[in-house]
Amino acid sequence: MPEKPSIGFIGLGSLGAPIAENILEQGYGLTVYNRTSSKSIPLKERGATVAENIAGLAARSEIIFSIVSDDAALKSVITAKDGLLSGMKPGTLHICMSTILPKTAVEMHYLHQSRSTHYLAAPVFGRPEAARARKLNFAISGEEKIRNSSVQILKDAGAANIWDFGESVNAANTVKLCGNYMIGAAIQAMGEGISLARQSGIDARKMWEMFTQTLFAAPIYVNYGKIILEEKFEPAAFSAKLGLKDLNLVIDQASSVNQRMPLAQLLRDNLQELVSTGREQLDWSAIFLGAQKN
Amino acid sequence: MPEKPSIGFIGLGSLGAPIAENILEQGYGLTVYNRTSSKSIPLKERGATVAENIAGLAARSEIIFSIVSDDAALKSVITAKDGLLSGMKPGTLHICMSTILPKTAVEMHYLHQSRSTHYLAAPVFGRPEAARARKLNFAISGEEKIRNSSVQILKDAGAANIWDFGESVNAANTVKLCGNYMIGAAIQAMGEGISLARQSGIDARKMWEMFTQTLFAAPIYVNYGKIILEEKFEPAAFSAKLGLKDLNLVIDQASSVNQRMPLAQLLRDNLQELVSTGREQLDWSAIFLGAQKN
Repeated sequence: MPEKPSIGFIGLGSLGAPIAENILEQGYGLTVYNRTSSKSIPLKERGATVAENIAGLAARSEIIFSIVSDDAALKSVITAKDGLLSGMKPGTLHICMSTILPKTAVEMHYLHQSRSTHYLAAPVFGRPEAARARKLNFAISGEEKIRNSSVQILKDAGAANIWDFGESVNAANTVKLCGNYMIGAAIQAMGEGISLARQSGIDARKMWEMFTQTLFAAPIYVNYGKIILEEKFEPAAFSAKLGLKDLNLVIDQASSVNQRMPLAQLLRDNLQELVSTGREQLDWSAIFLGAQKN
Repeated sequence: MPEKPSIGFIGLGSLGAPIAENILEQGYGLTVYNRTSSKSIPLKERGATVAENIAGLAARSEIIFSIVSDDAALKSVITAKDGLLSGMKPGTLHICMSTILPKTAVEMHYLHQSRSTHYLAAPVFGRPEAARARKLNFAISGEEKIRNSSVQILKDAGAANIWDFGESVNAANTVKLCGNYMIGAAIQAMGEGISLARQSGIDARKMWEMFTQTLFAAPIYVNYGKIILEEKFEPAAFSAKLGLKDLNLVIDQASSVNQRMPLAQLLRDNLQELVSTGREQLDWSAIFLGAQKN
């Protein structure tokens, strides 16, 4: 059996940490880096090496995962003086799981190509508990050889399914934006529908039981419906701040391909209202609260 | 075994006709009435009696189903000179399946009560093919005795499930409005999401395969996603005209309980646009077309 590749992992946030743990559990040598270094401690205690900086991590890794908060953070990780590009050896693969603009993915791909390193767009669908249960869904796109060679490590990272969107390097990023948009639209609809039921004196839980056992028997409606019915918006698994970031990306992408998206605009504005009124740390399904205000 | 009650059925539209057929198949004596009398012919050929007018149907029926297009049509069915109230014997039960305003249900309930007849709110969820497959979902509300005594005939009419929303006579009507609102919101979201994917050069079918096997694994997303991806908006199972009617009811109900519903407003406006531009006979999932126009 060939030795397992050495893995680097950048970004130990609420989703990054359990994915890194999955990799460690599968017996890979793992080097981690996080901007806030305290987040590396649990991984270190379980056997991971903590890198001083990203270039150091890059130098000792054959495959590098990254999952960071936004396009700017990703660009910094890659292009900073002691960043990925300065440390990666030729042939190294960077699996980028962040939710970013498709055009950013293209830029990053070309930067990697210029150093004879590889870039895979692999945005991930799933909350932290899905990562721990190894039930993540990855959308991937990029060069065929790279896609094929990434399947095993993605499974070991916690993928239940890997959805292949082909050669176009940024295709998976667009799919991720569409997916997050669809989720946001569903929570806006749930918030309004549940509010209408309650205001009309209906047993909203009973109604939700009906909907989620029939037409809306999908994880999104079951899980977010529960949060909305219980109004348990803290701790957030996906914050209003992140939701706003993603909706801004959706609007940006829509604008760049000349696509009108009135519902996405409405969602963005509601998320902006939550963030602007100091509720950015609530779960994004709290846009329900916005719908409740008359 | 007691003899089966004689059944009357008013409204042989795309959903009414297969429900009436179900009742006939279960061996009940059935009398039918439809404003456009030609629609009664297939039922007559299968053994139903065709009534000359609603009062005549009412006089010979112990249980009467109605499913008509809107509040005004229902009021006319009930209160016209040769309508239900003029023909129903005391003790007769009217099972009202139409999607109407909750306040209309209350009015109709009191009218029935004043004649010692019974009214059950039983709006129905399901497309015609679900009726034929006996997979309908009924939301019901009204007096407990009436609810309990309606279970068997609703099953025989094609109910897979009966969801009981209690004493308040109009509760089921509110649930139906919330449900149709949720469906409309989902198709608006699908339209925008699929448009964004296509405009961005993504394989939208592949994306939809991913979504409907994961986060959005629900009949609404599978069925409407198929219609939208194939742009097969004719023949409509649920027309833009009916969708607009229902969204107007939703907005009306929201207004009456002082509930802000910005997404419902957006939906209503998009459906209005379809209807105003001569596309009222398309399936309401054609609001996608609205989303495509820049």
